[in-house]
Amino acid sequence: MNNKITKLFNIKYPIIQGGMIWCSGAKLAAAVSNAGGLGLIGAGSMYPDVLQNHIRKCKTLTDKPFGVNLPLLMGDAEDKINIIIQEGVKIIFTSAGSPKKWTPYLKEKGLKVVHIVAASKHGIKCETAGVDAIVAEGFEAGGHNGREETTTMCLIPKITQEVSIPIIAAGGIGSGRALAAAFALGAEAVQVGSRFAACKESSAHDNFKQKIIEAKEGETLLMLKKLAPVRLLSNEFSFEVIKQESSGASKEDLSDLLGRDRAKKGMFEGDLHEGELEIGQVSSMITELESAGEIVEEIWSEYLEVLKKIVLESKTEL
Amino acid sequence: MNNKITKLFNIKYPIIQGGMIWCSGAKLAAAVSNAGGLGLIGAGSMYPDVLQNHIRKCKTLTDKPFGVNLPLLMGDAEDKINIIIQEGVKIIFTSAGSPKKWTPYLKEKGLKVVHIVAASKHGIKCETAGVDAIVAEGFEAGGHNGREETTTMCLIPKITQEVSIPIIAAGGIGSGRALAAAFALGAEAVQVGSRFAACKESSAHDNFKQKIIEAKEGETLLMLKKLAPVRLLSNEFSFEVIKQESSGASKEDLSDLLGRDRAKKGMFEGDLHEGELEIGQVSSMITELESAGEIVEEIWSEYLEVLKKIVLESKTEL
Repeated sequence: MNNKITKLFNIKYPIIQGGMIWCSGAKLAAAVSNAGGLGLIGAGSMYPDVLQNHIRKCKTLTDKPFGVNLPLLMGDAEDKINIIIQEGVKIIFTSAGSPKKWTPYLKEKGLKVVHIVAASKHGIKCETAGVDAIVAEGFEAGGHNGREETTTMCLIPKITQEVSIPIIAAGGIGSGRALAAAFALGAEAVQVGSRFAACKESSAHDNFKQKIIEAKEGETLLMLKKLAPVRLLSNEFSFEVIKQESSGASKEDLSDLLGRDRAKKGMFEGDLHEGELEIGQVSSMITELESAGEIVEEIWSEYLEVLKKIVLESKTEL
Repeated sequence: MNNKITKLFNIKYPIIQGGMIWCSGAKLAAAVSNAGGLGLIGAGSMYPDVLQNHIRKCKTLTDKPFGVNLPLLMGDAEDKINIIIQEGVKIIFTSAGSPKKWTPYLKEKGLKVVHIVAASKHGIKCETAGVDAIVAEGFEAGGHNGREETTTMCLIPKITQEVSIPIIAAGGIGSGRALAAAFALGAEAVQVGSRFAACKESSAHDNFKQKIIEAKEGETLLMLKKLAPVRLLSNEFSFEVIKQESSGASKEDLSDLLGRDRAKKGMFEGDLHEGELEIGQVSSMITELESAGEIVEEIWSEYLEVLKKIVLESKTEL
């Protein structure tokens, strides 16, 4: 495929792996890039020196383009940005923060900059800030999410009307069917999170991967809206959150309940009861542990099949 | 187009107008059917004799197939079913209730039966009950909705895996782009609500239509989850609901706050402050008052355009 996104990153397929905390180290990013997609190292759960090690390792594992996902609101964002630049990474996906502050500097240093949003009005700010592309992430996505609860089906057509830079669709996308749907809605690529979180090269704990594979429809919900909305898989912790929210728990109550390091506990240490298990609604479609390369190839071949089927059914009109 | 749904209903386009309370009388249903889609009279807000009048009027306005949408849980459902049969209506869309009780009787009387669900597990029950097709409605849809909050992007691929009867996608669909996306996800038709609620032939109050046209992204939210989850457009009433829910209001508190006839007050009588304004997220894409026929034609021509564009971009692979 040859479109604005495959050209921007110089990749074969318009399939980007989400830079997820506790899941996306060098191994996963390199595997996705080697398969023709774009792999991203998730810096959100790494100390600066750990990030540096992962970037260096990734360069030994692939000669294809890869990038880093960086949440801008964290205290050590500047240190990580310096490392990303020093190590010669050419692609950065920023999130959780304004694209205004760092985009001009990153562009000056020769990086391609993508910012992640969950609302069209934030997309407009990205374009003004000069980013190269936008990830527009719908309500169904795993992990942290927007307050407006706009789904991928509604967000993508709207944001493509509002901005002229290319849109990468995220949220609910783990298959060739969904890739075809995202293109139909106006996106030029997809960012896939959940499916790669559960793959062989993910650094998530095996318990968490197994729990994703077993997840059924309706078993994730967006919660902790008074703090920062996050989509979690059902477990003892999430039930307690829902119970307290239902009785009117305050922001402070919820902050106390959440405490620290719950995401690490759940996703990296494998505590399925008390950990935070960030995953998207599409987890109900994930049924086996595959390699990242198999996932990329499956998504692409299913996409072509779906496209052929639709074209066939509408052939008299085309 | 020639697929299972266009054949089932003998219609030209796989575009079905949602049978919405206070919006979908004979005038709207006939206009959609005359344009080549499938129009539905929304029986949920009609007394039995009013429904009878609308069915009779619809027969004078179109010689094309049309149907009735009937919520099964209402006290007068049996009376309405008798009228639907007596009047020779051949298509019924049922919702809010089990498909088990009435489907065999309706099929015996020669009707095509479609049931509306928001979860795949309920889709399986529909197939067992013998319905001809299923409307699978995502979280982004307006009005009453499921508790699992599964979006159209995630619901359609899952339910098409679980059942073998044809799926009509609903929720977030008001354009040719979204129709193409729905096909990609595995649906064989779409049900469009919000866009027809705001069209010329809708019986909604002009104030409500104008409010839909002005609605911005993020201005609808799913609420009243302790009663029956419903997606409403922001206004004084919805802000009060959100405020009380946030402080832990009980089911009884919310029931008292809701009172009676709020949907009629908002949607039919045009009280934009104190009425319930049921509408989907896709309202942010609705920008003008059009006729139902224009909407059907626009959706179909945009669908063909989108399909041509995608095929062109992937031509080397096809």
